Amino acid sequence: MALYTSSVARMIEEFEKLPGIGHKSAQRLAFYLLGQSKEKVAAFANAILEARNQLQYCSVCMNMSDKEVCDICSNPVRDTGIICVVEDPRDVVAMERSREFKGLYHVLHGVISPMSGVTVDDLKIKELLARINDNTKEIIVATNPNIEGEATAMYLARLIKPLNVSVTRIAHGIPVGGDLEYADEVTLAKALQGRREM
Amino acid sequence: MALYTSSVARMIEEFEKLPGIGHKSAQRLAFYLLGQSKEKVAAFANAILEARNQLQYCSVCMNMSDKEVCDICSNPVRDTGIICVVEDPRDVVAMERSREFKGLYHVLHGVISPMSGVTVDDLKIKELLARINDNTKEIIVATNPNIEGEATAMYLARLIKPLNVSVTRIAHGIPVGGDLEYADEVTLAKALQGRREM
Repeated sequence: MALYTSSVARMIEEFEKLPGIGHKSAQRLAFYLLGQSKEKVAAFANAILEARNQLQYCSVCMNMSDKEVCDICSNPVRDTGIICVVEDPRDVVAMERSREFKGLYHVLHGVISPMSGVTVDDLKIKELLARINDNTKEIIVATNPNIEGEATAMYLARLIKPLNVSVTRIAHGIPVGGDLEYADEVTLAKALQGRREM
Repeated sequence: MALYTSSVARMIEEFEKLPGIGHKSAQRLAFYLLGQSKEKVAAFANAILEARNQLQYCSVCMNMSDKEVCDICSNPVRDTGIICVVEDPRDVVAMERSREFKGLYHVLHGVISPMSGVTVDDLKIKELLARINDNTKEIIVATNPNIEGEATAMYLARLIKPLNVSVTRIAHGIPVGGDLEYADEVTLAKALQGRREM
């Protein structure tokens, strides 16, 4: 005999598809929502549908946007001469939170990954090249510091340097608040290589 | 400046309302869904809406059901003389999974908790009393082994015993696979009190 009604079972299955949500968590989330009023559950579902349906990509930087050109690209205060290249929209959020970067972004929507079948043509690379003009001073490549991220960074550097634009890579090293003892050797090596005069 | 578009921010807020989902997890879930096709997101949202809209309670045991009388209550094989009283529908799922219990259930939808403003009248207690008849041999009180669960169990026992029905409480003790060393003293004491001849 089934433990759940078919509609509850289907709801739990849908929650299980989410990243980091196992069967127990999916069940907890489903039962939580079933305990809420119909209005609250409708508000939850509609917020998801609306966000997905309104989703589009900024025609300039390829970041998620609800306009043709996103707020960052259309902000007159930002430095249009520097473009920070990231893997996906979450990275833009992380960078913006640091309040350190005042230039523009370019979202690749992935990294080169032969294992996952992601090639150069699947990424927003030609859109990036199309943005580079006489005004462009620097391209900061902020892909993640793993094999795919590094390979993509190398590929971009080789492509863009001939255009006489400076290509830089974000620094790798010990995280602030981190502990030398617990840093892996690759990170430590990168931290040493990147040392600066005090 | 906003980090997200307003609809994405609202979606993240809705996910944050779920139990055990903090801001980081909510963001991860939201961005995951935004990366899926509109059809998949619609299937996710509709599964939730459908489950909630089809939800009703079994008129006998007050468990979640998609029928007037649930599959357990209408199953002719189950022992109608024993009723296991639980706090909420999740507990029915947990009990059914053990495959140990062949009687019927009664879902209280909570426990007496003056701190949270839950009184006797908020629980499905009169519905439980209405079910007790000459056929009823035993009421097993399977509320959780915490202060509210124990208080509710005591209250039910005092109410039901005068009706000449046996009232029992599930055993407390060391979990199977558990370790004496790591058991708290209250559990150990309960395990000792509940010891049985081998």
